[in-house]
Amino acid sequence: MNEPTIHVLQSPPLVVGVDLGGTELRAAVLRGAQLLSRISLPTGTNPTPNRIIPCIYHAIDQVLDATDTELDQIKGIGIGVAGPLDSRTGVVFAPPNLSGWDNVPLHKIFRKHFNIPVFVENDANSAALGEHMFGAGRGCRDMVYLTIGTGIGGGVLLNGQILKGRNGTAGELGHMTVDWHGERCNCGNVGCLESIASGTAIARRAQKAIDTKRGRELLAFAYALRRHTSEAGRLDPSFHNYANHEHFTREQKVEASPISARTVWLAAQAGIPSAFSLIKDAAEALGVGLVNIVHIFNPDMIILGGGVTQMGPLLMEPALQIVKERAMHIPSKAVRIVQAELGVDAGLIGAGALVYHSIERGELL
Amino acid sequence: MNEPTIHVLQSPPLVVGVDLGGTELRAAVLRGAQLLSRISLPTGTNPTPNRIIPCIYHAIDQVLDATDTELDQIKGIGIGVAGPLDSRTGVVFAPPNLSGWDNVPLHKIFRKHFNIPVFVENDANSAALGEHMFGAGRGCRDMVYLTIGTGIGGGVLLNGQILKGRNGTAGELGHMTVDWHGERCNCGNVGCLESIASGTAIARRAQKAIDTKRGRELLAFAYALRRHTSEAGRLDPSFHNYANHEHFTREQKVEASPISARTVWLAAQAGIPSAFSLIKDAAEALGVGLVNIVHIFNPDMIILGGGVTQMGPLLMEPALQIVKERAMHIPSKAVRIVQAELGVDAGLIGAGALVYHSIERGELL
Repeated sequence: MNEPTIHVLQSPPLVVGVDLGGTELRAAVLRGAQLLSRISLPTGTNPTPNRIIPCIYHAIDQVLDATDTELDQIKGIGIGVAGPLDSRTGVVFAPPNLSGWDNVPLHKIFRKHFNIPVFVENDANSAALGEHMFGAGRGCRDMVYLTIGTGIGGGVLLNGQILKGRNGTAGELGHMTVDWHGERCNCGNVGCLESIASGTAIARRAQKAIDTKRGRELLAFAYALRRHTSEAGRLDPSFHNYANHEHFTREQKVEASPISARTVWLAAQAGIPSAFSLIKDAAEALGVGLVNIVHIFNPDMIILGGGVTQMGPLLMEPALQIVKERAMHIPSKAVRIVQAELGVDAGLIGAGALVYHSIERGELL
Repeated sequence: MNEPTIHVLQSPPLVVGVDLGGTELRAAVLRGAQLLSRISLPTGTNPTPNRIIPCIYHAIDQVLDATDTELDQIKGIGIGVAGPLDSRTGVVFAPPNLSGWDNVPLHKIFRKHFNIPVFVENDANSAALGEHMFGAGRGCRDMVYLTIGTGIGGGVLLNGQILKGRNGTAGELGHMTVDWHGERCNCGNVGCLESIASGTAIARRAQKAIDTKRGRELLAFAYALRRHTSEAGRLDPSFHNYANHEHFTREQKVEASPISARTVWLAAQAGIPSAFSLIKDAAEALGVGLVNIVHIFNPDMIILGGGVTQMGPLLMEPALQIVKERAMHIPSKAVRIVQAELGVDAGLIGAGALVYHSIERGELL
């Protein structure tokens, strides 16, 4: 039904990509999906706009220098930011992970400083565009990208264009309620997909479990892991000693903390029921979210990115089984659900893709 | 942001609209939103394609005759059908309410018979288009239409175009899971919005309640209503006698059945707690669904149609309160949530709008 997209990128021009996350700031000079130079900096504990924006300027100067590139050789700067923001105006509202950012007109500021085209987008939207142009979504014009990491972000492409909505805040798929009797999410909503299936949610729920008796084995596993750095989902022999502890001391509990989603996953693979049940919950919520996406968008493809999707079959098999069982119509069950391809640099490649997308649409010459 | 739509319909051409529902088949000759003639027929207990399609032909002939119109004066035929169907190809899959319909190429059949342009669409999508062109959504290009009646249907317009998806089955907003631990929906999915907030769901849950002790007052109310046709949400004095019944006989229970969503609403207004709680559940689920729509689409407007939305403040106030409390971003809270304007003929006007929409897009001269 959809014509394949032909991206005129055989010799794509140079662009700058900026990926501004809650803990790290990255910048790169790109040619297509190829990173010619890159830099990453911690945003620090007090990432106010007054501190961060000059850092970004400096980072851009450095990546340009590293490739011996002048600003006038650059077609534009794409900036992916952990939302919420209005991608139509380039104003960042108040990202929970960036303190002090409150209605910052990022587009205007960068445009004034560099005097070349600037594009500001929610980082999930820009990553979706990156997968569409250079990754798993090539040739696919109706696709949904879901990134599951510390949070859950969504980016929806319809006929090859980002779904933006009235204020540029559409596509917040992680903040779709799937459990109306569930816990309150950080965003203020209740029972969001993110509050069950994100890495943060898995870790938070694990922490809650180990405060009760049913989490004792998980605590023992985390403690053994911490003490003996046993990996790969095998139980360290010492685990059995810890598992027989009647009580962990407060000190031991502190030593085992914080429990990460990765620890829960390793524990689940080692057969610890409470951990298995947490991953199963995440998988089920993800499956429910995917069914909702199929019913709402009936897309060609759903692309899954982010660290949590690296959990493999333990997470993905139950999730895909739910799609198979519950999606309404036979044709919509045929949606392709695939892993993202761009990996750790997805943010930077997506940020660059914002510039290429604009070139494609004829907005830039 | 969006340019207002200027519909070139000052003197709109004549079109035929067909609204094919589970219980009734309607046809009309329309000029814009004006019905020049209309007919409605019951679909009967065995609405197979072989029986229904000739009925539609005959109905169209009758409405043409009634307005003294020849087929060659008609620009096209729009058909709204209770989905699922592939609106890209005009093939009806297998609507739960139309037995024997299984991959019926409705577009092809009508096109062959009448030899004029034919448009087949999910009835919620066509009603959405009707509201966009002639109703509450005039001038609004990014809108979501939700119809809450026996089922819950959705139609999404983005930049003035219907969101169709890969197989033309997008926009199934009633089959978005909001309660992942909920009941199985007729569609096979679990905890769908439709399974809590539709008229059928309210009635089914009421029936379930009266089989337990907590539903005794509701049963008494329904029985009093049935016997004395007391209306307007006031308790018939005889209610108190019934409410003091220790046991209703099987015959009395049968006499009170089936309990409609309307009865539950009247009982809720009369202050019967179990009925109030059912309407409150429906309102909450609706509120959750609206928040999801805001987070996913960030639309200009959400238009609510269908009989259940006539329940007024008892339903709408808690639902809108949830949107106010839980929608993430200040700008997206500003979404306008309004009642549909087209009323009982929304289906026919929407079916006609399919033809006008196609004229607007330059597909018909």
